Amino acid sequence: MSVPEAITSLQNPQVKRLVRLRERRERERDGVLLIEGARELSRALQAGLQPETVYLCPALYSPDAAGLAPSLPGATGLSRAAFEKVSGREHPDGVLAVVAAPRPTLPEPGPDAVVVVLHGLEKPGNVGAILRSADAAGAQSVLVLGRGADPYGPNVIRASQGSVFTLPVAALPEDEALAWLRERGFTTFACTPDAPRSYWDAPLTGRVALLLGTEHEGLPPHWRAADQAIGIPMHGARGADSLNVATAAALVLYECARQRRAAPTGPAAS
Amino acid sequence: MSVPEAITSLQNPQVKRLVRLRERRERERDGVLLIEGARELSRALQAGLQPETVYLCPALYSPDAAGLAPSLPGATGLSRAAFEKVSGREHPDGVLAVVAAPRPTLPEPGPDAVVVVLHGLEKPGNVGAILRSADAAGAQSVLVLGRGADPYGPNVIRASQGSVFTLPVAALPEDEALAWLRERGFTTFACTPDAPRSYWDAPLTGRVALLLGTEHEGLPPHWRAADQAIGIPMHGARGADSLNVATAAALVLYECARQRRAAPTGPAAS
Repeated sequence: MSVPEAITSLQNPQVKRLVRLRERRERERDGVLLIEGARELSRALQAGLQPETVYLCPALYSPDAAGLAPSLPGATGLSRAAFEKVSGREHPDGVLAVVAAPRPTLPEPGPDAVVVVLHGLEKPGNVGAILRSADAAGAQSVLVLGRGADPYGPNVIRASQGSVFTLPVAALPEDEALAWLRERGFTTFACTPDAPRSYWDAPLTGRVALLLGTEHEGLPPHWRAADQAIGIPMHGARGADSLNVATAAALVLYECARQRRAAPTGPAAS
Repeated sequence: MSVPEAITSLQNPQVKRLVRLRERRERERDGVLLIEGARELSRALQAGLQPETVYLCPALYSPDAAGLAPSLPGATGLSRAAFEKVSGREHPDGVLAVVAAPRPTLPEPGPDAVVVVLHGLEKPGNVGAILRSADAAGAQSVLVLGRGADPYGPNVIRASQGSVFTLPVAALPEDEALAWLRERGFTTFACTPDAPRSYWDAPLTGRVALLLGTEHEGLPPHWRAADQAIGIPMHGARGADSLNVATAAALVLYECARQRRAAPTGPAAS
């Protein structure tokens, strides 16, 4: 495939802007996301996001990128040096897009909706993995509170494998999130390693909000005053640090799905 | 703390050996592991491993490293440049040890033993995460088949957070592993994304072996002829690739633990 005009100058204003957009506050200022990689961009397009500009570098194409490129008319070409300058990856595949930031509206929850609430999680890999598991387990949406990892940052997009586009993910102030959950009758469960009650013993049907805190400090005290605290039994020699927060999230999310199947109180999760 | 003699030359034979030991085949030839990091070394020592040589670089100490160092008499000092040359980390903490490779003997399984069998998994992060979850969920041991990630490689040690030292982890030829399991009456469950039977519906009590395959290709055909195949229900838009193999492993491991608690057929997992 030929790309009509290729930018080669590293001083080109578009190249400079792409470098700038690697910073979260610059993306927020412009109201955009950076989506790198053929797989990630495919999923964003499937989810209905509209690219503002697509940048391609045929010299760097992976097979997936070569397959996607013909469906991206009007793309701007970048030389290899220019693409490598703007890429956030060690092995770029030649596909990068600037996309208007989605403004997901939280869907009104069904009677058995599961909502994940992340409080200040810092590692993009953990946030992305939780989004991926939430999507697979049939959660309805994810609320992101506090100044942890940007849920639309490049590394979260990558680790979520695109789930950030298919699942409603909303960054909200803490009080708005709490009010939204309370008004809709959610039961809130604080997931903390030291909770004496096992997640197997908690009634996880009905409208359930799962609160997950930072990797190091867990949930702040006022969030621990959730309706219930649940933990995961640990058999290993190392005690409460035995599980990664994303693994713990997957376990509780799938327990919600299991209990819904075993004892539905409303329509089955779809 | 003072470290008596510090090696400064990057041409020093010990420095050269440490660089060489970053390769798996060199570690195997010497019958040793490289353990970097104060946390990882602490856990290896707790598990009874004996360091052959400990290398320290006080200029690089993290608080944990400074706390551990006084308990490591006879350590060899390295200059900052020498330590950075031999380190496999972006931010080394000044602690590195060469340790004789453990030769774990597989304990005879109890009546409810869960054994994890990894076939050719390539990503050290996934192998390490599975070891960590297996430890937390009370699995009895892990068998590693095929030439995937070295279960005692530096990145597996790190991702396992030391579980590789506290849980028996044995690398075995495939036929030996199968024979070991068959002789002891294990029921083998192939965990594959496309299995129609949900892991919730499988009877995961008694002696259970969970077979997990590579990230891309899953299990080879002859392993798919396990006693049963189990999958994890996927609700997301993306289908069978929705869950990472380490997340899938954690879900099945904890379902084993749940079923043992709900319907024990032998002593409870400890």
